[in-house]
Amino acid sequence: MKHNFGAGPGILPHEVLKQASEAVIDFNGTGLSLLEISHRSKEFEAVLDEAVSLVKELFNVPEGYSVLFLQGGASTQFALAPYNLLPEGGKAAYVETGVWANKALKEAKYFGEVQVVASSKEANFTYIPKDFEIPADAAYIHITSNNTIYGTQLQEFFKSPVPVVCDMSSDIFSRVVNVADFGLIYAGAQKNMGPAGVTLVIVKDDLLGKTGRKIPAMFNYQTQIEGGSMYNTPPVFAIYVSMLTLKWLKAKGGVPAIEQENITKARVLYEEIDRNPLFKAVAAVEDRSKMNVCFVMENPELEKPFLKLAEERGIVGIKGHRSVGGFRASIYNALPISSIYVLIDAMQEFAEKNK
Amino acid sequence: MKHNFGAGPGILPHEVLKQASEAVIDFNGTGLSLLEISHRSKEFEAVLDEAVSLVKELFNVPEGYSVLFLQGGASTQFALAPYNLLPEGGKAAYVETGVWANKALKEAKYFGEVQVVASSKEANFTYIPKDFEIPADAAYIHITSNNTIYGTQLQEFFKSPVPVVCDMSSDIFSRVVNVADFGLIYAGAQKNMGPAGVTLVIVKDDLLGKTGRKIPAMFNYQTQIEGGSMYNTPPVFAIYVSMLTLKWLKAKGGVPAIEQENITKARVLYEEIDRNPLFKAVAAVEDRSKMNVCFVMENPELEKPFLKLAEERGIVGIKGHRSVGGFRASIYNALPISSIYVLIDAMQEFAEKNK
Repeated sequence: MKHNFGAGPGILPHEVLKQASEAVIDFNGTGLSLLEISHRSKEFEAVLDEAVSLVKELFNVPEGYSVLFLQGGASTQFALAPYNLLPEGGKAAYVETGVWANKALKEAKYFGEVQVVASSKEANFTYIPKDFEIPADAAYIHITSNNTIYGTQLQEFFKSPVPVVCDMSSDIFSRVVNVADFGLIYAGAQKNMGPAGVTLVIVKDDLLGKTGRKIPAMFNYQTQIEGGSMYNTPPVFAIYVSMLTLKWLKAKGGVPAIEQENITKARVLYEEIDRNPLFKAVAAVEDRSKMNVCFVMENPELEKPFLKLAEERGIVGIKGHRSVGGFRASIYNALPISSIYVLIDAMQEFAEKNK
Repeated sequence: MKHNFGAGPGILPHEVLKQASEAVIDFNGTGLSLLEISHRSKEFEAVLDEAVSLVKELFNVPEGYSVLFLQGGASTQFALAPYNLLPEGGKAAYVETGVWANKALKEAKYFGEVQVVASSKEANFTYIPKDFEIPADAAYIHITSNNTIYGTQLQEFFKSPVPVVCDMSSDIFSRVVNVADFGLIYAGAQKNMGPAGVTLVIVKDDLLGKTGRKIPAMFNYQTQIEGGSMYNTPPVFAIYVSMLTLKWLKAKGGVPAIEQENITKARVLYEEIDRNPLFKAVAAVEDRSKMNVCFVMENPELEKPFLKLAEERGIVGIKGHRSVGGFRASIYNALPISSIYVLIDAMQEFAEKNK
């Protein structure tokens, strides 16, 4: 049995994988594979409709927002957000909380002025900047809610005089969020919502069409809204698996219930890291992520032997990102708490051996 | 048993579906699903490498070309081709052979001047325009090699003084093509190459970087080449299934072998349409597609009863596109000739009954 702590594409619920595997052979008794049916068939249209409904229900999406399933990952949204929201000659504010936030702001520079209102770069992004001012003349402020590489997470979203654009790729559906506080939310599916190959976009309709810029069809949120995410052939399989994952989440009690589980999962793991003399957490205590737990060893020479022990226990994907080193345990929605206890056991046993 | 004549996402080989289904549960004995492994794992990197190698081998891609697996479908390429190849203030030539060609040229207008050098719009695109002149000052000429809706196909590619950009979405890998004759080939996978959610791009490297335009990372072929199609998380599953489909094609003898099969499949079906007094082919004889066979009935009132008979025989996906009516039998690489004989039997039986 494997315990999948990988940072993404990440763990998916077992029952979702089982259903997805079956659909590849015979989709809902049609006698055809999900991979070879028309996206315009009533069977697939029902899947897409259900996926959109589940997002609206699970996230309490208010009226006036559109839910899209697009291709290209969050990296494409780094460009599409300013393409659609930053007027010609306008300015956007960015909070720089890591490599991904940095990539997002670089893409915005193709479309207008970028003001970095805060950055934790000088501390290798080990904390989330606070107490920054949001310029009232910015078209929007962009933030990355969770930073996988550094294990930091914005604990509370801020009120803003300008629309908030948020990359939630690595913590979407992990906690309750008030969608009405945002102008645009986007997330690659492959951490908490489904497989790689589809991106969720939740956008406030009345922000669109105001840039004075002509936008090619596929890059234009309005075209995608009018086409109901089917302006062209959508990524059928990735949407289907996302729908199954959202359904699984609903059956578990929805976002409030999973948030409680996530709080517990993160708490027990951080407690062990803080207690265990061999390990040390990387992120500022108040900004610790409940999705990606980054930690190193007081004695780096012990890292390799610990990785080996972890592997023997079926623990996979805990090697830290090269820019931080050490370990990163990604504890997304689908990871059961039992896997965390397996990791904790390994840490305790290793500490015992290396006293 | 179903006979899948759907226009796309289209039929895939049975053994590919079987392997894909298994990989969703356990990928290559890793104990993890293909959907939850890192795209940076050596297992997935091997898949992507093999997919690229198979494209190069099956299509005899010469030196100086890059092979990419991207997201967003051909519709995204409609914009990316001019974004990357049409210089500021430059001009591109387009041949208008249908709705998709028309969408492609509309997107190009966001980036420069578009000259439509030929169109068969006045005849509802029932033929492929010939004898057009290619302006020597165009950055490229764009053509759609096969037109699914109308059942027309460019039989022989032309020599051109400017680079040829070709949308091969619906006939890629169905026939031998001399890649060296093209500047850019692109194709959504979901007809002849794999499932929806991935797009093949084959681009001549020395055409890039010459527009004078700054291009955001995800829209820039050069970024994608440098990143080896992994600038960001790629559509892992769709690439894997495409790789399996290309492997299947190789085992069948490659493109020359499948081309012979495709010629035979198309011939027997057109012969029946031409012979059967109830049916009539739509496209100009010399431009008939070997991928999408479009035909109508002399007496349109018989169309519904024939569709019903076809359904009873397990024939699915033959309803024609609304803009043409009648029937469309898509006979992609993975469709066995036995399915075509089932369709022909139904046509003959129906003609017998309705003498």
